[in-house]
Amino acid sequence: MSVQNHAPKLRSFIAASQAFAAGRDTPAAFLELCLTAYGARDAEIKAFASVSLHDARAAAEASTVRWKAGKPLSPIDGMPIGVKDIIETIDMPTSMGSPLFEGWCSNRDAATVHALREAGAVLVGKTVTTEFAASPPAATRNPHDLARTPGGSSSGSAAAVGAEMVAAALGTQVVGSIIRPAGYCGCWGYKPTVGGLNRGGSYDYLSQSCVGVLAASRADTWQVAREIVARAGGDPGYHGIAGPDATPEVVAPRTLAFIETAGWEIASPDAKPALKHLLDNLAAADIKIITRETNEAVAALEQVMPEVLPLTRKIIAWEERWPLNTYARRDASKLSASALARLRDGESMSIDDYRAALARRDEIRAMHARLADVVDAHITLSAPDVAPVGVETTGNPIFAVPASLLGVPALSLPLLTIGGLPLGVQLVGFSARDADLFATAGAVEEIAFSPR
Amino acid sequence: MSVQNHAPKLRSFIAASQAFAAGRDTPAAFLELCLTAYGARDAEIKAFASVSLHDARAAAEASTVRWKAGKPLSPIDGMPIGVKDIIETIDMPTSMGSPLFEGWCSNRDAATVHALREAGAVLVGKTVTTEFAASPPAATRNPHDLARTPGGSSSGSAAAVGAEMVAAALGTQVVGSIIRPAGYCGCWGYKPTVGGLNRGGSYDYLSQSCVGVLAASRADTWQVAREIVARAGGDPGYHGIAGPDATPEVVAPRTLAFIETAGWEIASPDAKPALKHLLDNLAAADIKIITRETNEAVAALEQVMPEVLPLTRKIIAWEERWPLNTYARRDASKLSASALARLRDGESMSIDDYRAALARRDEIRAMHARLADVVDAHITLSAPDVAPVGVETTGNPIFAVPASLLGVPALSLPLLTIGGLPLGVQLVGFSARDADLFATAGAVEEIAFSPR
Repeated sequence: MSVQNHAPKLRSFIAASQAFAAGRDTPAAFLELCLTAYGARDAEIKAFASVSLHDARAAAEASTVRWKAGKPLSPIDGMPIGVKDIIETIDMPTSMGSPLFEGWCSNRDAATVHALREAGAVLVGKTVTTEFAASPPAATRNPHDLARTPGGSSSGSAAAVGAEMVAAALGTQVVGSIIRPAGYCGCWGYKPTVGGLNRGGSYDYLSQSCVGVLAASRADTWQVAREIVARAGGDPGYHGIAGPDATPEVVAPRTLAFIETAGWEIASPDAKPALKHLLDNLAAADIKIITRETNEAVAALEQVMPEVLPLTRKIIAWEERWPLNTYARRDASKLSASALARLRDGESMSIDDYRAALARRDEIRAMHARLADVVDAHITLSAPDVAPVGVETTGNPIFAVPASLLGVPALSLPLLTIGGLPLGVQLVGFSARDADLFATAGAVEEIAFSPR
Repeated sequence: MSVQNHAPKLRSFIAASQAFAAGRDTPAAFLELCLTAYGARDAEIKAFASVSLHDARAAAEASTVRWKAGKPLSPIDGMPIGVKDIIETIDMPTSMGSPLFEGWCSNRDAATVHALREAGAVLVGKTVTTEFAASPPAATRNPHDLARTPGGSSSGSAAAVGAEMVAAALGTQVVGSIIRPAGYCGCWGYKPTVGGLNRGGSYDYLSQSCVGVLAASRADTWQVAREIVARAGGDPGYHGIAGPDATPEVVAPRTLAFIETAGWEIASPDAKPALKHLLDNLAAADIKIITRETNEAVAALEQVMPEVLPLTRKIIAWEERWPLNTYARRDASKLSASALARLRDGESMSIDDYRAALARRDEIRAMHARLADVVDAHITLSAPDVAPVGVETTGNPIFAVPASLLGVPALSLPLLTIGGLPLGVQLVGFSARDADLFATAGAVEEIAFSPR
């Protein structure tokens, strides 16, 4: 099995925009490259639930005029973007992967989508989601191997970015729905600190859930998030993602904690050495790597990792009682068996069960926060292996769920390639320190691509 | 001017339910009393945006069968309830007081509405709201004087309860939208601790906003909130209103702080002595009343009160950018001048302005929280005077806004009558101690009705 510690890079809009400013390229031409990939491959990949090509081309033309005049609305003016189909759009249906909402139009944009339009971004289409951003999956395929899942629930967002049909896409994550598909599809994935991006008009009404970004590069990822925050903020009452206007400068971390999470035991025989090789390179670059064996605080955190997925499922089960209960009242035959089972789980809980779960989550969050003085970030895999064969499941979220439960920022970096297929390396940061995580990620990427 | 320190009591469903249990009365008969009031008066009061009378009668009949069998689903099984028209209902439009949403059907129930149905409550109709629960007002009139406003934005909810068309109604408050109309319409009003009741499916996506209850009595108010919390919880990630299953026992407070807020200066010459008379009765009942003159912590809080309304408006202006911006994009001609002005205010702000406002709110909240060791609750008016003449405004929210900004529970008690018109007395409690506030309110009510 061929194992590489870096993967091919995707076409970056932010990198291309230097040529827009210089008059050597245009957003309209960039969009056509994306639409060529869309036209050539989406019939088999099925990344999009709906597209708005005419409007997208018109928006790219308008952006081209602004760049030529030296007056782009923002660094992402003209960037082709996909929007996960649980997030409202004024001009396309929001079908949520459910027959209950097939073709449903909200007649408004979500807060993030409106912000993207204000920044000049080009909305190409709605990307396929699993049912209500949970399960079961829809028909989307992995662009690197059509026999495999792209991951989920942000399936179409990851596949569309991975296939270079868009430079970025919005996703959401409450368990592993950004980090895992990004890891499987070879793109960057970013789940912000809880509350980091405004969820108004996004149908993910759950306490751990975040709107996040999947994109072609570190710069594209940051800039999309940044332009949204400046215009729509975070969730009401939250400060939103903090950090500089442009992509954070690369800063080499002093210390990283390698965390096994509950997933290491089932990580594949190819994935483990691939990550270890990267860790060796990081260590060779004078970054201290601590582990459960060398640090007590890391060991304490690892101790509770087996709780994280079941605790998350318990919290979600209560929080999904609504709206699953009103959907079941409307037409239970249009809900999946999985949704009905989750509803039964939720309805078997009392509010005191839920309160106890929240209290336990607070304890685990406090345990993790204590590591902020010790390490710059945690590093681990984004998934136990490359995307599994089959599209009946979206793969195992075991590596992605800790950052969700902790409410802290996480990034999936497209650094590993195993047997020609991508696998993400995950960095997990600390609450409200998203920009620091991007700075660290820049250093990890540089080292991965220039091993000493 | 005739000033009384108590007001006529409204018909309580919880009180009537003893007769249901004993077989001497039925929820079906209770509903008919409500519908008689509705039929006689709603053409002029205009409390309802839509009604579902056939379904309501069927639900009351089903409830009657359950009570006769000794198996009510909850203490509010059969209670006729109105729902503010920014909260989704599966069987009635959710028009939000806006021509943009006239007749719009979401095809689902909000979390609170689903919970009410699970508890057996009878959903009579949707109550009129101002445009998007802000301003300008709709055509609803005060049931005590048709020439006057019922207050807003929960205009129809307060009017419907005040006119005994329902025993309770859901409202929302981000500035003064429950406490003020309850105070004007002679019913109980309850704005919970922030996050206390699940806002899923309620279009009040603002950090200070709460779903709350307007009802005929202290017991009706508590029980509606309690049955919702048990089934739908609070906002995701919040513990929800805590407290006993039945209405909290009456507990006389040891100390109350009389707070002038920024409103006392403009309180009417009738309202001031009416409240002072009640305070004298409370003092005569051995409750210590402290004020800005006698306590430094109260004085410090009073000092910042003039900031509270402008700070709230600033926070809301940012938070309302969305969805007002996408509504304006859709059809600005269908937004009020007030909404467009608020949008301009929001768009003139940066996220750093918003962050500074949140930080200041945190400081003021901390200042208030320090009083928790000193007093059981704060007491003041619900509004500067009885409902003003005219329906062009909903009256001044100056007394109601402090509890909104503080994120703490507040109750409006229908204890004062001035010139035949009701005016509420407001109690403001401490975060997550809603049940304590109900206990205190019971004592204040008893003393008001039995002055020594």
